Amino acid sequence: MKQEKIIAVVGLGLIGGSMAAALRGFEDYTVVGVVRRQETAEYAMSHGVCDRVTLEPMEVLPKADIVYLCMNPRGIVEYLAKYRGAFKPGALVTDVGGVKTAIMEGAKVLPETVDFIGCHPMAGTEFSGIEHSFPTMFQRAHFILTPGEKSTEEHMDLMRRISAHIGCSDVVVTTPERHDAIIAYTSQVMHIIAVAVCDDEDLFQCRGFEGGSFRDCTRVAALDVDLWTQLFSMNAPALTKVIERLEDNLHAYKEAVQSGDTKMLAEKLAWSANRKRQMNLPGPGQIML
Amino acid sequence: MKQEKIIAVVGLGLIGGSMAAALRGFEDYTVVGVVRRQETAEYAMSHGVCDRVTLEPMEVLPKADIVYLCMNPRGIVEYLAKYRGAFKPGALVTDVGGVKTAIMEGAKVLPETVDFIGCHPMAGTEFSGIEHSFPTMFQRAHFILTPGEKSTEEHMDLMRRISAHIGCSDVVVTTPERHDAIIAYTSQVMHIIAVAVCDDEDLFQCRGFEGGSFRDCTRVAALDVDLWTQLFSMNAPALTKVIERLEDNLHAYKEAVQSGDTKMLAEKLAWSANRKRQMNLPGPGQIML
Repeated sequence: MKQEKIIAVVGLGLIGGSMAAALRGFEDYTVVGVVRRQETAEYAMSHGVCDRVTLEPMEVLPKADIVYLCMNPRGIVEYLAKYRGAFKPGALVTDVGGVKTAIMEGAKVLPETVDFIGCHPMAGTEFSGIEHSFPTMFQRAHFILTPGEKSTEEHMDLMRRISAHIGCSDVVVTTPERHDAIIAYTSQVMHIIAVAVCDDEDLFQCRGFEGGSFRDCTRVAALDVDLWTQLFSMNAPALTKVIERLEDNLHAYKEAVQSGDTKMLAEKLAWSANRKRQMNLPGPGQIML
Repeated sequence: MKQEKIIAVVGLGLIGGSMAAALRGFEDYTVVGVVRRQETAEYAMSHGVCDRVTLEPMEVLPKADIVYLCMNPRGIVEYLAKYRGAFKPGALVTDVGGVKTAIMEGAKVLPETVDFIGCHPMAGTEFSGIEHSFPTMFQRAHFILTPGEKSTEEHMDLMRRISAHIGCSDVVVTTPERHDAIIAYTSQVMHIIAVAVCDDEDLFQCRGFEGGSFRDCTRVAALDVDLWTQLFSMNAPALTKVIERLEDNLHAYKEAVQSGDTKMLAEKLAWSANRKRQMNLPGPGQIML
């Protein structure tokens, strides 16, 4: 009898639940969810989130060919330390964490025989929990990989096939340090802006005056506090720099508005708007929407 | 023969084109577009944007029961001055401008017999021009009215029926000053954030690393430069204050991230996230999405 091929998805929350559901049907793998709570297991099975589910990591980790760690960043690092001896020799271990330097560092506890490739699928919502998960979450998203020093081409190719199966637009390979520096800008500071906007004293007076730009900018403010506290604090130096750059750019706009020099303001707006239009053009790593 | 009832929509750009198309079929009114360029007239007629179109304001203004001014704010003020004697006695003149104090001031040139009610439908996109207009633009949007001192209840009721016809979620009646103060926060500073984010030196290096929050926050950066230069400069004192409040709130987050005090950061994030969740609850003037 042919050996069953297994992908274990550890943690079926918003991202893990979506990942498990998206992975179903990937080649000839069986998707096994690993959860802590009986009710999550029941939800997963009754909603077809995975093929099987278990509350006992040791039932599946020693047999899994691929292990997808889908917890919060600190949870991932702790899990790697706790179960470092449990993975099958030759297994590929990966994750979905939004910071990569700390996680790649944490993965150093793994034995030589286990390959860890860091992964960050650039998708999500402002909600949390399996009941908000959905299998199309990763469609058209970037799929970022930070391979380890000993990651094999075979495993990189496997990750590329996973990326295609779950519907990602492209695979971006980078270093953990570069990932964290850029993500501070493209993701973390967007969340800082959203919460800072909601701190405004006029927030509750503005009902009836919001348009699409307000809803879009503040959408992610209703964030998962524990997750984002970890993401921000595990990337604090890079994030601090990006906030400082934003402060400078905002301040320059404040001065342009305040100056009353409409010609200068128009030129400044034209410059920024052109940069955005340039970004919207198709290019490397660019999604066509 | 019964007299034809006419709504003249002056300026068929992104907003005017959408407004004309949305107004079609409103009670027994004929929607007549007033444009400056022959090609806009041809586009409007071939795409069913309005019932009729003219390049000559004097052909329709003296006959129109309702005149919807859909140009840029300065264009609206100039048009009111130029055509102040052309409107039909008893007519209702309104507009779509994103600043209201300057426009209500400009409307003071109108004769006693003409009623001006300021209007700001809270909808739009980052594009411009009739080719980007669409009749469903105002669906579920707030419809803000700033009546003049002598605006009649009959005309206010007419505006409420227009709001319902074009699909707005609710009608908010306020003063021009309050509108401008709040809009500086809910709309203008969202655009300032979007352009300031696009001024970041890492913009073009971040391709392949953007997720939904980045796309949502920067969407409106590809703005109509002339329009937003007018909107910002015609509301500079209110906008400056809101940018300053945002600078303070951002700075507080920078210090929380930098401090390394994760408990304090978590408490701060929980506070902001709860404010956003509170905003998302149904309430007065709140759209259910």
